[in-house]
Amino acid sequence: MPITVVGSIAYDSVKTPFGERERMLGGAAVHFALAAAFFDEVRVVGPVGDDFREEDLDVMRERGIDAADVERISGGSTFFWRGEYGWDLNTRETLDTKLGVFEGFSPKLSRRSRESDVLFLANIQPELQLDVRAQLPGARFVALDSMNLWIETARDALERAIAGVDCVVLNDAELRQLTGKPSLIAAARELLSWTSSSEAARGPSVIVAKQGEYGAALVTRDGFFALPAYPLETVIDPTGAGDTFAGGLVGYIAAHARGAGGPPSDELLRGAMAHATVLASFNVEEFGTERVRRLTRAEIDARLSQLHAMTQFSGP
Amino acid sequence: MPITVVGSIAYDSVKTPFGERERMLGGAAVHFALAAAFFDEVRVVGPVGDDFREEDLDVMRERGIDAADVERISGGSTFFWRGEYGWDLNTRETLDTKLGVFEGFSPKLSRRSRESDVLFLANIQPELQLDVRAQLPGARFVALDSMNLWIETARDALERAIAGVDCVVLNDAELRQLTGKPSLIAAARELLSWTSSSEAARGPSVIVAKQGEYGAALVTRDGFFALPAYPLETVIDPTGAGDTFAGGLVGYIAAHARGAGGPPSDELLRGAMAHATVLASFNVEEFGTERVRRLTRAEIDARLSQLHAMTQFSGP
Repeated sequence: MPITVVGSIAYDSVKTPFGERERMLGGAAVHFALAAAFFDEVRVVGPVGDDFREEDLDVMRERGIDAADVERISGGSTFFWRGEYGWDLNTRETLDTKLGVFEGFSPKLSRRSRESDVLFLANIQPELQLDVRAQLPGARFVALDSMNLWIETARDALERAIAGVDCVVLNDAELRQLTGKPSLIAAARELLSWTSSSEAARGPSVIVAKQGEYGAALVTRDGFFALPAYPLETVIDPTGAGDTFAGGLVGYIAAHARGAGGPPSDELLRGAMAHATVLASFNVEEFGTERVRRLTRAEIDARLSQLHAMTQFSGP
Repeated sequence: MPITVVGSIAYDSVKTPFGERERMLGGAAVHFALAAAFFDEVRVVGPVGDDFREEDLDVMRERGIDAADVERISGGSTFFWRGEYGWDLNTRETLDTKLGVFEGFSPKLSRRSRESDVLFLANIQPELQLDVRAQLPGARFVALDSMNLWIETARDALERAIAGVDCVVLNDAELRQLTGKPSLIAAARELLSWTSSSEAARGPSVIVAKQGEYGAALVTRDGFFALPAYPLETVIDPTGAGDTFAGGLVGYIAAHARGAGGPPSDELLRGAMAHATVLASFNVEEFGTERVRRLTRAEIDARLSQLHAMTQFSGP
């Protein structure tokens, strides 16, 4: 099923213990799309400025991504982020953020983008997520990411946005912050109870906790599943790992979900978690999109086999 | 194969968001022994003071643990720790530590304790670990735990101690601190290269990283394995979880290792990791040893089945 993603398209300047890059292609929508495009058709919605390089659009187009709704705002600058990571890459400092064209961004979706069956609301202002969500009332599977900033400054809108999606993908710590619950399970169960009061009420049925180097966990009404991160001796740049993870997750679900709706099965979701984990592991091996843009399906499958072997043990 | 454990036998006063307990039975050797006793014969070595209650020795004896080498030091006080945990139980503050009889402790092992095939050196001064290690030169499997304090204040002795064991069990962050390597894999590979220069040189072949609520990872020369923690809605008291984990791990290895020595197989180690994970999950459900002391084998097996089901996914 085709996927529409709405989120940032950015230039990132990043310094890690292993090097640095100036103004490389980044942004949540870009990382998501490059990962999801391995599984299904992806349509990207987001604004860029005059400074956005045509060759960076080509990075997406070469993967078959539909970039027709990448809106070039005349006189504007592309969203810019500068950050630096600590020695073990678990801490990062934001040195500069320039919203640029994201200031006053009002998502305009083409008919094509509105017809997608699957929607990913990347980490942007919750009011914008609600706006976009309303433009795809018939979407069969909708997932959402967010961040601490919106939990702190736009909680009400975020809560409404969450009540209108099927799947919430958040960092572990953000899940606790959002719900005020100290454990992952308690936090996830809290979110599973947030049902929309609107007519098409469903509310989230799939909660995914991103745990960085420790992996990721999945909580549904029926079960729990967790997977370690694929172990890497050296991580070069974690930027975009979470969005790449989401791209693998949602892309796999879009490609494999069958039937007349209803939440995807736990078995399907586990496969999606595994593919997401593998995609994210490639993303962090090099700066920005460098690794994923030349990634092959065969490499994904090979690493998936390794991940599978690393997580099996004999039952009782 | 019988197991000897050397480490603290303590009274702990603990406050968590869910309650508090004064002077409850604790200590690394106690938590280890109560877990390992599910799998094999355990002999505990460590000092206590005049204040140590006979009923607390009975807690161990009722599990078939050999407490003959629990040495009562006349005029001394049992090791005491007081701590308080933060709201999500991931941070804890030590409010008081009284070494008591641990000050000037010189481990005296009976012949019986020296004849064990398996040895666990719980988190104590590395010089004491070296001393005890030398008293069991023929042990077939030796594992060691330690902590940041010894990395900072007794690194040389700790490095020598590590070079003389088969298995290192450390917290994730301690592994990085010890090796100066930013990733788990790099840190573990560094430790796998620390070979003893003594005659019976072998050096660690099994590295286990405890990751708290995220689970645990295993690195050997042949492979990598990781397992999430068993998910609990509410954790009451994490005190002793790491030692309970080690007890499950080493106990399982002792009971299942076969043949004429050599490192345990990766398959056996994975089973040990799974049992260790299950034991630790019970430990944190109540204060101190309260839950594990009435735990049954059937409960362990049932949770092991659940853990297995929570970690399986279809391979490619």
